[in-house]
Amino acid sequence: MEGNMESFNYGLIGSNGRLGAETKKAFTEAGHKLLLEYYKDYENIISAPDLIVDCSLPEVFAKSVELVKRYNVPFVIATTGLTEKQFDELKELSQSVPVVQSYNYSVGIQILLKLAAETEKIVPDWDIEITETHHRFKKDKPSGTALMIKDVLSKKDVNISSLRLGNVAGTHTVSFGGLGEVLTITHDATSRRTFAEGILKSAEFIITKTPGLYSFKDVVFSKKG
Amino acid sequence: MEGNMESFNYGLIGSNGRLGAETKKAFTEAGHKLLLEYYKDYENIISAPDLIVDCSLPEVFAKSVELVKRYNVPFVIATTGLTEKQFDELKELSQSVPVVQSYNYSVGIQILLKLAAETEKIVPDWDIEITETHHRFKKDKPSGTALMIKDVLSKKDVNISSLRLGNVAGTHTVSFGGLGEVLTITHDATSRRTFAEGILKSAEFIITKTPGLYSFKDVVFSKKG
Amino acid sequence: MEGNMESFNYGLIGSNGRLGAETKKAFTEAGHKLLLEYYKDYENIISAPDLIVDCSLPEVFAKSVELVKRYNVPFVIATTGLTEKQFDELKELSQSVPVVQSYNYSVGIQILLKLAAETEKIVPDWDIEITETHHRFKKDKPSGTALMIKDVLSKKDVNISSLRLGNVAGTHTVSFGGLGEVLTITHDATSRRTFAEGILKSAEFIITKTPGLYSFKDVVFSKKG
Amino acid sequence: MEGNMESFNYGLIGSNGRLGAETKKAFTEAGHKLLLEYYKDYENIISAPDLIVDCSLPEVFAKSVELVKRYNVPFVIATTGLTEKQFDELKELSQSVPVVQSYNYSVGIQILLKLAAETEKIVPDWDIEITETHHRFKKDKPSGTALMIKDVLSKKDVNISSLRLGNVAGTHTVSFGGLGEVLTITHDATSRRTFAEGILKSAEFIITKTPGLYSFKDVVFSKKG
Repeated sequence: MEGNMESFNYGLIGSNGRLGAETKKAFTEAGHKLLLEYYKDYENIISAPDLIVDCSLPEVFAKSVELVKRYNVPFVIATTGLTEKQFDELKELSQSVPVVQSYNYSVGIQILLKLAAETEKIVPDWDIEITETHHRFKKDKPSGTALMIKDVLSKKDVNISSLRLGNVAGTHTVSFGGLGEVLTITHDATSRRTFAEGILKSAEFIITKTPGLYSFKDVVFSKKG
Repeated sequence: MEGNMESFNYGLIGSNGRLGAETKKAFTEAGHKLLLEYYKDYENIISAPDLIVDCSLPEVFAKSVELVKRYNVPFVIATTGLTEKQFDELKELSQSVPVVQSYNYSVGIQILLKLAAETEKIVPDWDIEITETHHRFKKDKPSGTALMIKDVLSKKDVNISSLRLGNVAGTHTVSFGGLGEVLTITHDATSRRTFAEGILKSAEFIITKTPGLYSFKDVVFSKKG
Repeated sequence: MEGNMESFNYGLIGSNGRLGAETKKAFTEAGHKLLLEYYKDYENIISAPDLIVDCSLPEVFAKSVELVKRYNVPFVIATTGLTEKQFDELKELSQSVPVVQSYNYSVGIQILLKLAAETEKIVPDWDIEITETHHRFKKDKPSGTALMIKDVLSKKDVNISSLRLGNVAGTHTVSFGGLGEVLTITHDATSRRTFAEGILKSAEFIITKTPGLYSFKDVVFSKKG
Repeated sequence: MEGNMESFNYGLIGSNGRLGAETKKAFTEAGHKLLLEYYKDYENIISAPDLIVDCSLPEVFAKSVELVKRYNVPFVIATTGLTEKQFDELKELSQSVPVVQSYNYSVGIQILLKLAAETEKIVPDWDIEITETHHRFKKDKPSGTALMIKDVLSKKDVNISSLRLGNVAGTHTVSFGGLGEVLTITHDATSRRTFAEGILKSAEFIITKTPGLYSFKDVVFSKKG
């Protein structure tokens, strides 16, 4: 896919954060050019970008919207913790430009969600177990992603086991057990790079789209070509 | 699914073998009644069956066909190593009765094949690795099922790693690796029971079908209800 | 080890049960000869055995002790659920003959217990997680073996995750997580054969020992030769 | 262990590299103070350090030795690819100061090596399989660490399977298969941080030692207290 892609010029909001830095790296390696950078007290606009990416915080949201409107370009937003009001603004914005919004830009997790739902449909009578492993500092149990897995299943009483180990970035497993066999689907996030790749994929997807609000699921499962 | 199923009377060829014995157990537990039994020098026909299952050997194939024709009933055959001529006979037979034929009646493996093919379509640029683990006595490397996994993929140079350990019944793994994430689908056959369950599923599927040659894939991915 | 072993004659109590049948098979394959067999209403004594194995139930315990005393031979007992009084009798018996007693004859579990305890001593500050997976019919959570793992650790608040899937025979995992790395030790029981092998190992260990009460741990970690 | 440790002043050679940067972070978090920094054309000596760490390249080795000699302090060296001549110099140096040298500062790998060797001694007749998974850019197959695992085993014909997936940092597995059970030991390096932690552990170990050449194995398996 990446091979067919024309390179483009992009703006990056929150380029100083950990996800921002990783995103910058991924875009650079893909041949795209950074023309606008913004964070806290820093603003550097070389020229008008073809697309804007936001890896920032809800506090910066207003500024991001302003920049997207100013250049009237596609927008990919990875900011977590948006308020309902901000979401409404995003919807409004998506009437004039194409927008991709997601709280989790991992392609693999999207695939796992799809495969888990499909598997349950084929063997609805099999047992299901979800397991998630994260670093010891993660306070919430179970993880949001484990709950997303549970949500795509029809069975409603699925057990989730939560493990806390060292500084594991995030491992999610869903197992289906029949008599005489077990089928297991596991996703390992080995680095933040996976999210940067998802943002890149979203940018390359949306740059040619018409206005509208897209999810990362739309990006992952869109037809190639 | 099993709950809605009417119980039926069946015949079992090769009931003395290991798979045959397991199949008998699975059918009995599902409430079906054994009315015809045949192996080597043993034949016990209580009355005409609604369906015939063959867990036997190619040597017995002619007798199986004769019995299926005699009672004109659906046929599920798990015999491996059929000759081309026997396959032709099976096709001919399937013009008058519905037939399910497969060399591997594990539902989980069918699901794994489907999920693997789908995953590759979504992330065609990710690396793929196949691993299979079997008991130390298995001579062929890689396993036939590992080759089936390879066959459903578009990528043609996928590496297969073969492990031989103790008396492992059979574990197959296909892993997809992107930058920053790995998605793994694993199937563990924990007992021969899995194959007996697949044969049972096939019998319950075919008993209401019109003549034709069906694969186990048709059984697994048929619409429920 | 097995290679150096002289074959011997043995008695088997409870040879009709599932573990008993598996044990008989393992002993036969190792070249040992069954001279005494006992269960419920069946008794077949061809001649005096060199050793007696008990794969039976607490109800049969008195008979087992009687037979061991009659022939004054080493005794391997796998019966679970012994009462305290029966345990006292076993101790008394072990003053005249060597006895091996255990509730779990899996070599691998003994190794896992040893490795887990050692690992914790080397990295006492790492996080620990225990996971156990068993068939859906297992009622007790967590498994007795998972509790055994917890018991060999110094850390007292170790989390145990219990998964119930299909008819999994038993998988136990203990994971140690440091910053930047995870070390995992996993044991999979793939069949009852593992326990029969442990009983065989115990018989071959004890046949040359002096009176005393031995555990399966003593068998597994004895010096070879 | 870390809790009892007095903080100390250290020098760091190669602080600009990826391992150097990670090491600096680990030492800072542990409360140690950087007083001497050296790389390529950069030298910053605030005052005499209590210990010197080298995360650099063979080209810098002469400078490192010079600095260690100048301050006459313990030395931890993580440089890979040392020549035989440089090794001889290191031995000589270790007659006047304590030195830790290793090509792999992962604690978990040291533990895996120990556990694997022990397991084989307990069940010498079980099958063994080694698997290693690394990022797709790793050219050498099998990995050096997989060969280290093979080396600690007595069995000489152990199979190593090499998987190349995405950007996996490094996973090593050694499996032992008996009849009816499989015991698996797996090590996952989730980040370079693991190596920095090993260097920190080595520094804290050696700061109170007498002159001599120590391996990382000595560090990991030393008595605590």
